[in-house]
Amino acid sequence: MNPRIVEVRKNIMKKNDLAAAALRDRFQLKRMFVASFVSSPGAGKTAFLERTLKIARSSRRVAALVGDLATEQDAERLRHSGAPVRQITTGTICHLDAEMIEHALQGWPPDEVDWLFIENVGNLVCPASYDLGEHLRVVLVSVTEGEDKPLKYPHMFRAASLIVINKIDLVPHLDFSLRQTIDNVRLVNRDAAVLEVSARTGEGLEAWRDWLCAEAAAAREFVPL
Amino acid sequence: MNPRIVEVRKNIMKKNDLAAAALRDRFQLKRMFVASFVSSPGAGKTAFLERTLKIARSSRRVAALVGDLATEQDAERLRHSGAPVRQITTGTICHLDAEMIEHALQGWPPDEVDWLFIENVGNLVCPASYDLGEHLRVVLVSVTEGEDKPLKYPHMFRAASLIVINKIDLVPHLDFSLRQTIDNVRLVNRDAAVLEVSARTGEGLEAWRDWLCAEAAAAREFVPL
Repeated sequence: MNPRIVEVRKNIMKKNDLAAAALRDRFQLKRMFVASFVSSPGAGKTAFLERTLKIARSSRRVAALVGDLATEQDAERLRHSGAPVRQITTGTICHLDAEMIEHALQGWPPDEVDWLFIENVGNLVCPASYDLGEHLRVVLVSVTEGEDKPLKYPHMFRAASLIVINKIDLVPHLDFSLRQTIDNVRLVNRDAAVLEVSARTGEGLEAWRDWLCAEAAAAREFVPL
Repeated sequence: MNPRIVEVRKNIMKKNDLAAAALRDRFQLKRMFVASFVSSPGAGKTAFLERTLKIARSSRRVAALVGDLATEQDAERLRHSGAPVRQITTGTICHLDAEMIEHALQGWPPDEVDWLFIENVGNLVCPASYDLGEHLRVVLVSVTEGEDKPLKYPHMFRAASLIVINKIDLVPHLDFSLRQTIDNVRLVNRDAAVLEVSARTGEGLEAWRDWLCAEAAAAREFVPL
């Protein structure tokens, strides 16, 4: 690659890391637990987040930021949950970065929140490189995408604390092996938790809530006060 | 955006456009018809290409280039068709560019071909900006991805000559509206052809073959000799 491009890239990443570190401090200070979601377009991030907001709202103050190249559709859809939601439209940019998050959080959300969810642009490549200051990153993969995605997009799967295998209600209609998918996850990420869910039917969402509560509690324990 | 980044981007695009123009001349000179496929990860590009190679081989000399961040899996899978196939692994790069194509075509394919297919990295954002010198671009979208993808990834859908709606065998198991999807395609691209197929069952592939033959014939007519 052209050395000039390599240098500009390095500077972009350095700048993002600084902005992400500032966000991380701010989240700690506000005792705000932050999780981000990444996936291919159409893997069901928004449906999953919709369910998550509804479940979490019974016991936590929650909010969400959603990234897309264009449209406010996801934010409108998610606002039905009653939680504050803000859309970030990125134009032609293929990922969210820490500066966009910082900008979206200026004077928002209107009230204190315990849990903030960030839905990234649908893309299994570019978001992998951008730290958003979040406590953890969740990669969703849908059963309709086949078993090979962890091997083909290793950077993304490596950066995840949790892999959510979504749309498991469709497994009977597909030539798809859950076992093979999990084996492939293990080849690139030995430590990530793996959950099988259906955002449509609600299957597996209790295990997701329990996992999230445990992670949020663990993150709080590390808050330096 | 940082003016330095804007400038570097502009230079990258300019360089790519020049390399793509050289490829285009070369394809014309060799009377090689070139189509590229783009989609989300897991929309079924490889299965669709697998079927396409098998169908096309009965009457045309065909070859394929396939792009992925990592693994040779797709090339191995496609070689079962008997056609020459070469894998391009991009590392962390989110798209193919004209230089990668030029490089992959050095001394390859071993014999003359009539039709060359290029399968891009699974990504509905970044490949939109990179001309590969191809005659036409096909965007695949799977019915499991929902109806809103054309609106959320307008640049990609705008750049397509054909939209292939894949996995229509799954429609009975989904809350999915073909009509709504096509309406959304029309909001961003009034001219593209739209075909409904199932690479798994073979449904719709005759119409695809007919469309491809017509486009290839039209492209040949424009060859300056």
